[in-house]
Amino acid sequence: MPVGTLGSVKGVSQDVLEDLGVQILLGNTYHLYLRPGVDVVRRMGGLHGFMAWERAILTDSGGFQVFSLNELRKVSEEGVTFRSHLDGSSHFLSPEGAMEAQIGLGADIAMAFDECTEYPAEATRARASMEMTLRWAARSKKYFDEHKNEVPWKSSQVLALSSQEKRDRKRLQPSAVSRQEKQVLRSAQDDNSEKGLDGQTQALFGIVQGGMDRELRRESALRTVEIGFPGYAIGGLSVGEPRELTREIVESTLEHLPKDTPRYLMGVGTPEEIALYARMGVDMMDCVLPTRAARHGLLFTSEGRVSIKQARYAEDRGPLDPACSCGVCRRYSRAYLRHLYSANELLAQVLNTVHNLHFYLSTMRSVRESMRSAL
Amino acid sequence: MPVGTLGSVKGVSQDVLEDLGVQILLGNTYHLYLRPGVDVVRRMGGLHGFMAWERAILTDSGGFQVFSLNELRKVSEEGVTFRSHLDGSSHFLSPEGAMEAQIGLGADIAMAFDECTEYPAEATRARASMEMTLRWAARSKKYFDEHKNEVPWKSSQVLALSSQEKRDRKRLQPSAVSRQEKQVLRSAQDDNSEKGLDGQTQALFGIVQGGMDRELRRESALRTVEIGFPGYAIGGLSVGEPRELTREIVESTLEHLPKDTPRYLMGVGTPEEIALYARMGVDMMDCVLPTRAARHGLLFTSEGRVSIKQARYAEDRGPLDPACSCGVCRRYSRAYLRHLYSANELLAQVLNTVHNLHFYLSTMRSVRESMRSAL
Repeated sequence: MPVGTLGSVKGVSQDVLEDLGVQILLGNTYHLYLRPGVDVVRRMGGLHGFMAWERAILTDSGGFQVFSLNELRKVSEEGVTFRSHLDGSSHFLSPEGAMEAQIGLGADIAMAFDECTEYPAEATRARASMEMTLRWAARSKKYFDEHKNEVPWKSSQVLALSSQEKRDRKRLQPSAVSRQEKQVLRSAQDDNSEKGLDGQTQALFGIVQGGMDRELRRESALRTVEIGFPGYAIGGLSVGEPRELTREIVESTLEHLPKDTPRYLMGVGTPEEIALYARMGVDMMDCVLPTRAARHGLLFTSEGRVSIKQARYAEDRGPLDPACSCGVCRRYSRAYLRHLYSANELLAQVLNTVHNLHFYLSTMRSVRESMRSAL
Repeated sequence: MPVGTLGSVKGVSQDVLEDLGVQILLGNTYHLYLRPGVDVVRRMGGLHGFMAWERAILTDSGGFQVFSLNELRKVSEEGVTFRSHLDGSSHFLSPEGAMEAQIGLGADIAMAFDECTEYPAEATRARASMEMTLRWAARSKKYFDEHKNEVPWKSSQVLALSSQEKRDRKRLQPSAVSRQEKQVLRSAQDDNSEKGLDGQTQALFGIVQGGMDRELRRESALRTVEIGFPGYAIGGLSVGEPRELTREIVESTLEHLPKDTPRYLMGVGTPEEIALYARMGVDMMDCVLPTRAARHGLLFTSEGRVSIKQARYAEDRGPLDPACSCGVCRRYSRAYLRHLYSANELLAQVLNTVHNLHFYLSTMRSVRESMRSAL
């Protein structure tokens, strides 16, 4: 899932995302809550209507970013008090508040409000944090179940826009919904009794915590499954621990999560890592790496990383990645991409992002194909 | 002509420019001379090869930007000494140097090296400046005629890239060349005896100066035509004078320029102005306004200017311009565009630029149609 923090994958229009084959993207509740605000997005028909994106969206709970962006946060049993990174204003987010926000944003998949345990953490701290995440998961589910019928894409709101404007808006073409999306939507549908547009509403996923302790992770997984969600995420990784430890925790946690529900590993990773985790059984991942690295001129290719700012590319007529079929590699030379980056041209960020997203998505396509042919 | 200062129309990829129907764009010799340098561009096959743009390109002479960007320039009969705005390094540009640079960049149309007379200017100063521009025009033409066969898109260089990479590069598809381009290329062809790729080389246009004095303008036009070019530009306008004066000078200058060669008004203007000047007989114009205004959130629509940052658009579900058929207006709401701009998202600059370019190009399409039907 490419990351579209503020309702936009930075620099790339939704048409291009569709052409790249993006099936689902991630929006950040924390950022959207502050700007433009949940109420605005809800009144625009949710994130789908607001950003004119018909394919699937997942929102995080806001918890991770409150924890990682806020020095001044204050955590209590009730929730988290934090200050906006924009204007310093004070805000409070609880499991109930995070659900209310995510229902307003109206993504296809919402995430339970969890505490991302810091690394390293003492055993007692990791357990206490995990226990609180479990209590928050139950509260998240309770609030979500009671309010999920308030999702803004039910009924007339989204469709009104279409008929009102009498426009052939691309996002409302049914062909844009892929098979995979339909599965995601179906899993949402199966789990929820209240129906929105076309009988669908959101799905709420639980999050496993437990620090770097395999036993705590096992307990967190089992007790989260006991609460019961249509999908499960592994949170609290990629927080500074060595990669080998990430792999161990992922492997041991996956064992305790049902194979017939989506299993989502949050916040990873490099192309090599996402291929590895997918082979281990992870179904979903998100990461800012392809997009953020692109904006800093770091490009992923079949021949390894390319730091496009380097002088060695100044007159390199070859494509960025000779094995890549993306629009950037088909059209432009390394010399041109290097020039755009060096001259700080906007187009550098646009083209670099398009390539890196294509590289990530095609990495996942290859993994899916190789797993399918191994069956 | 959209402005692509550094070999890129800021934020918009060449594929999108093609989809928008851009037939010719402008590159700035001053900027490209400093970055990445003329030698690099020449070795990459000229601007066409470097930026992977098969349609037409015009380069300015560098003179205007040396005059407008440089406080420390020093003008002599020989040429202009100036300092780079990037690193303060000292450079010298003469008519011959400007031709050498533009031949290296290899645009379809190059411009004679002129002195843009400042506004206001005393009568004696305006005359002296005009006289120097005439001498520089003759020197430009002489150097150009002696060296135009050195254009980098002749012969094997561009084609070698294609066969070497065995790729179906879009820019080498012959269908991308429009009828209008063929006319431009033909006019270049007719005028030049040395032939490049497919028997074509560049065309060099002369520039009329003369300040705000109709008599000086007449003399400049007649004497520039006497030197002889396949196209003529009106320079030295949009330098701070009132718009009514611009109109008067354009009108009186056009009278003295041959109707059967392209007449190019440099550096204008608003949508209303470009429509007006086209109806007066101007064939070509360039302006940073649509692209620069877009990046500052100023959008041109059939209902007038829209400053998209305004709070009144925060929940406006309508398209930016209900009468516009561009991809931005077809897909996104004003509320979304306002959010992107307010949140300083990269995509704001991309989408705003696409819309403004579409608005300008469709303004010109309407003008052409109405002139054709008036025949």
